[in-house]
Amino acid sequence: MNPMDQLAINTLRFLSAEAIQKANSGHPGLPLGAAPMAYTLWAKGMKMNPKNPAWDDRDRFVLSAGHGSALLYSLLHLFGFGLTIEDLKNFRQRNSLTPGHPEYKHTLGVETTTGPLGQGIANAVGMALAESHLAAKFNTPEFKVVDHYTFALCGDGCLQEGVASEAASLAGTMGLSKLVLLYDCNKITIEGSTDVAFTEDVKARFIAYGWDVFEVVDGNDADTILATIEKAKATDKPALVKVNTQIGYGAPNKQGKASAHGEPLGADEIGLAKGNLSWTYAEEFFVPEEVKAHMAEIIANGEKAEAAWNEMFKAYGEKNPELAKEYAAWHTDELAVDLLNDEDFWKNEGDIATRAASEKVLQKVAKAVPNLFGGSADLAPSNKSVMKDREYYSKENPTGSNVHFGIREFAMTAMANGIAVHGGLRPYVAGFFVFADYMKAGLRMESLMGLPVISIMTHDSIGVGEDGPTHQPIEHLAMLRSMPNYIAFRPCDTRETAAGWYTALTKTNTPTALILSRQNLPALEGTGKDALKGAYILKDCVGTPDVLLMASGSEVELIYKAYDVLAEKGVKARVISMPSWDLFEEQSAEYKESVMPKAVRTRVAVEAAADFGWHKYVGLDGAVIAMEGFGASAPAGLLFKDFGFTVENVVEKAFTLVNK
Amino acid sequence: MNPMDQLAINTLRFLSAEAIQKANSGHPGLPLGAAPMAYTLWAKGMKMNPKNPAWDDRDRFVLSAGHGSALLYSLLHLFGFGLTIEDLKNFRQRNSLTPGHPEYKHTLGVETTTGPLGQGIANAVGMALAESHLAAKFNTPEFKVVDHYTFALCGDGCLQEGVASEAASLAGTMGLSKLVLLYDCNKITIEGSTDVAFTEDVKARFIAYGWDVFEVVDGNDADTILATIEKAKATDKPALVKVNTQIGYGAPNKQGKASAHGEPLGADEIGLAKGNLSWTYAEEFFVPEEVKAHMAEIIANGEKAEAAWNEMFKAYGEKNPELAKEYAAWHTDELAVDLLNDEDFWKNEGDIATRAASEKVLQKVAKAVPNLFGGSADLAPSNKSVMKDREYYSKENPTGSNVHFGIREFAMTAMANGIAVHGGLRPYVAGFFVFADYMKAGLRMESLMGLPVISIMTHDSIGVGEDGPTHQPIEHLAMLRSMPNYIAFRPCDTRETAAGWYTALTKTNTPTALILSRQNLPALEGTGKDALKGAYILKDCVGTPDVLLMASGSEVELIYKAYDVLAEKGVKARVISMPSWDLFEEQSAEYKESVMPKAVRTRVAVEAAADFGWHKYVGLDGAVIAMEGFGASAPAGLLFKDFGFTVENVVEKAFTLVNK
Repeated sequence: MNPMDQLAINTLRFLSAEAIQKANSGHPGLPLGAAPMAYTLWAKGMKMNPKNPAWDDRDRFVLSAGHGSALLYSLLHLFGFGLTIEDLKNFRQRNSLTPGHPEYKHTLGVETTTGPLGQGIANAVGMALAESHLAAKFNTPEFKVVDHYTFALCGDGCLQEGVASEAASLAGTMGLSKLVLLYDCNKITIEGSTDVAFTEDVKARFIAYGWDVFEVVDGNDADTILATIEKAKATDKPALVKVNTQIGYGAPNKQGKASAHGEPLGADEIGLAKGNLSWTYAEEFFVPEEVKAHMAEIIANGEKAEAAWNEMFKAYGEKNPELAKEYAAWHTDELAVDLLNDEDFWKNEGDIATRAASEKVLQKVAKAVPNLFGGSADLAPSNKSVMKDREYYSKENPTGSNVHFGIREFAMTAMANGIAVHGGLRPYVAGFFVFADYMKAGLRMESLMGLPVISIMTHDSIGVGEDGPTHQPIEHLAMLRSMPNYIAFRPCDTRETAAGWYTALTKTNTPTALILSRQNLPALEGTGKDALKGAYILKDCVGTPDVLLMASGSEVELIYKAYDVLAEKGVKARVISMPSWDLFEEQSAEYKESVMPKAVRTRVAVEAAADFGWHKYVGLDGAVIAMEGFGASAPAGLLFKDFGFTVENVVEKAFTLVNK
Repeated sequence: MNPMDQLAINTLRFLSAEAIQKANSGHPGLPLGAAPMAYTLWAKGMKMNPKNPAWDDRDRFVLSAGHGSALLYSLLHLFGFGLTIEDLKNFRQRNSLTPGHPEYKHTLGVETTTGPLGQGIANAVGMALAESHLAAKFNTPEFKVVDHYTFALCGDGCLQEGVASEAASLAGTMGLSKLVLLYDCNKITIEGSTDVAFTEDVKARFIAYGWDVFEVVDGNDADTILATIEKAKATDKPALVKVNTQIGYGAPNKQGKASAHGEPLGADEIGLAKGNLSWTYAEEFFVPEEVKAHMAEIIANGEKAEAAWNEMFKAYGEKNPELAKEYAAWHTDELAVDLLNDEDFWKNEGDIATRAASEKVLQKVAKAVPNLFGGSADLAPSNKSVMKDREYYSKENPTGSNVHFGIREFAMTAMANGIAVHGGLRPYVAGFFVFADYMKAGLRMESLMGLPVISIMTHDSIGVGEDGPTHQPIEHLAMLRSMPNYIAFRPCDTRETAAGWYTALTKTNTPTALILSRQNLPALEGTGKDALKGAYILKDCVGTPDVLLMASGSEVELIYKAYDVLAEKGVKARVISMPSWDLFEEQSAEYKESVMPKAVRTRVAVEAAADFGWHKYVGLDGAVIAMEGFGASAPAGLLFKDFGFTVENVVEKAFTLVNK
């Protein structure tokens, strides 16, 4: 190996180890073992311009094993992405640019937030899918304006997670040839040797998925690593490169042991490692001058690479002005069309299920948002998530923009996150609402990253009917509503469904779930754009109401009808449709008070879901008509009656409360 | 094929198709295609006694593809498990024994609730693991009292789900040789051919996991199916039997198409199928007399099989009285030891993290509950979930009862559910609380099934510190609290941790999560068995309180200390420790009123989590000190201060509210 490479690799190792030591917290095992492959990839295998980490056509790098963050930060420092030695010294400290796990939008050069294992691999599959589709859309025989690789680095942990299996299988079907997964195989996890729980033949598994597979016997052999990466890039399939390493390499008392994984080495052990690896510099957080000079060359080459691409793009634009214009439009999250004032968009589509309403709105959205890209986990005919004027994506037809994700809800979500961070596309996914359970860990990541991923979630209550309790969401609204920076939107009819879609398209830093009914719902008088406020008065009495009636989705009809019956009984009700608590909470205190005056304490909420959370709006004096347990298997109409979701019950509860 | 077998198979087909037709809802595709393998397995490959579906040593059968429930119900009818033709006619109707998906504890002979895909496979792995451990524990060279197989039947859908991959990989490592997975490979899912999303080589994948793999070319060839099942049973590895079938077999216009999957065939198509399969009986829901007679023989053989086992067990008990006694004790959920009155169990263990407290309690529990069996998803040193006096389970050492689940949170949970329904063992699992996200779909199934699975969930808040927001739970308490029939228990010190464990052990129809701190917490005066009520007065003022202070876990210390400061300011506070909302809700109205009098509206809740749900207890007039977004990466102490979790802030909020 080139001595300069060796020196740079050891620089990464000790920057990482010392950052962890200073923080007295972190994971040195991976950085020490994986530094050679990471350095080699970044220095020689990747196209990047550290001066512009946002360059569209850069190669992507995902540290799926996010606990190895110190290595990533050391790379970002060495390769000139702007992280300073001071930042490394502030590793894992409050408000630093170097938090415990890599955070997207927080640290320049971090392509996606990782830490929860396995998801980075699925993110990477999503990125490679985005690249493939964009390349098919924008490249011409003369100009390859979209032409980059996606690399992910994972450990034994990521490969045990089911989400990685799901995504890898789909990557194989899709033939995502520009995806390269570096597998840091150190055969150690927290509980010890992988022999205790992970003896499978990973290479054979990936071959079964339709990947090409390579192995590097010695993870310190940078030359072979490079040659193998180049082979992996050249194949026409996604490629796995298994690199055999030693966790905590260099630290004589810890290498190869679980104890190297997740705690600082200790100052003494770092000293021993330095001796061991012939690191002769006394100063901590030290970068040798010759390494700096070497990196400067690499950085300069990166600038040249982007400059050349910019030149090419200019020529491309001159010859293909329409495509260049589209390219620019696709690379912004701004909505190009004024849907807010588009009458057709807000049209009442009749008494149909909100999943059917969503299907109609989706067709309009697909026209307004040409880079919309997504699909379902094998439920498209049921959750009505197909863009009918578009084709399906496949290996043979990468220009298609409907996606068959297969029965892989979690990978679907994590892939959508990868598509979103990649840029250029507006991803959506679709499933049955109850299977938000399978997606939850991915939904959380998109909330944390602030990605505008759209989830079409149908079959939203006991309205599922005969499929029974395994398929009937109960606690799922609470699950999504309680998550920070997430918008759950459960519309009551077609116009509110349009409001949900409008929200989803315009909230560019927040994901949205559209929670939709299986069963038909009536179009109600007065619904519409007010739904964008999350909750609004759908029908009101004269003067101060005796009771506030609140509901979302399919139960709005009940409170709407209860209004008249209560009026006959002399009770003045206010009907509040509440499709999104999250949006309502964003409104001004004045607006909130205008909808739900503090003085009116008699309040009844109705929702065919757990009552959990509703007391924020009904208080200690109100009542909630809700599900007290799981659902049941029977025709939906019967279930609504059996579980008390009737106009009569709403009237009775309200009447009793008012007269208490 | 034997004509009788053919007739029985077609009986299953038409019972299923007609049940679905009558319900006008259901999934005929799988029953028509998989009837031959299901019949063959039940009639000739499985050990069962339909007259006693609870016989410990029966072979287990899991219909992982739970949407094929009509097939399972038809089997249960034909094989004499008590389901009647009337039950089949009531398929998917309210209060029937034949709900949309198979439900454990609801229909005799259903071994586990299925429907959410993939989980049934993991359940089956859990069952096979339980069998292996119990066999190692109880069998003697002379007597194999535990000696049964676990079979699962899955489709293309289950095999795409990550949870199945996780469980299959672990089954390979564990060498669970008595597990046989029948793969109904019909190459059709809802969105069409599996070619669109699932082209992997499933057999090669399972070989990579360490399974033996077999294939039956023609899924209607019952003789070959039987021969192959017998081979699969005989190997010393888990075995996959891929059986190539046609979805909707026999229905001429639907077979081999996605349209056969999830909707009734239609009366006309059923008629055509009958002609096609030479089914000559005009009557609907018909079981030919010769089939009845044939089944009677099989049922009688089942009775004999159990009788022989009972004989053997008697002899076993005579020669091994201690083992027989233990066997009986292990097969009950009753707690054999009076932990409630065991002083040592309730002992104050000092100012330690509740994860450390749990580790201490776990050692006591492991002595009191010899059939406790469980482990962690590769975090045992961190979540402190090892039974120190016990060995680890492995292929070589199946008597071990600590389990290395690997980095597979979802499969861990679904396997625990399989262990629980198997019987004989008390399963627990352990992980970081934030990764309850990965487990959610399995946690919901244990709630739905009413299984007393225990989840040790540590690192329960921003107290995680440096690992940052990816690892800091925020909305997870709401996620668990909102789920029906689930107990979330977040203790504030060592004695409350004992209360959590006691709850977990004594709630035999409800799962429990112990939500535990990473950081040290002080042992507080007055904690103890009152925590079993979910919420209780830890410290009180004289007379009516001015303010109710409520908290759980690590925040109880804050309200405890705020009490004195408030007292100095002339504010009378009541300190309510609230480890479990779920348990508190079970208490009498009187008790609840005694703890939180309706008249006292000034209430402050403190919890380092989302405020979601707390308004049930603080109402419209109270305040919640909670997390308003995600956490951050920094030392935990700093984070608590930064996010407002201080005694000063509690005092200020309470003082302001009282004086409003």
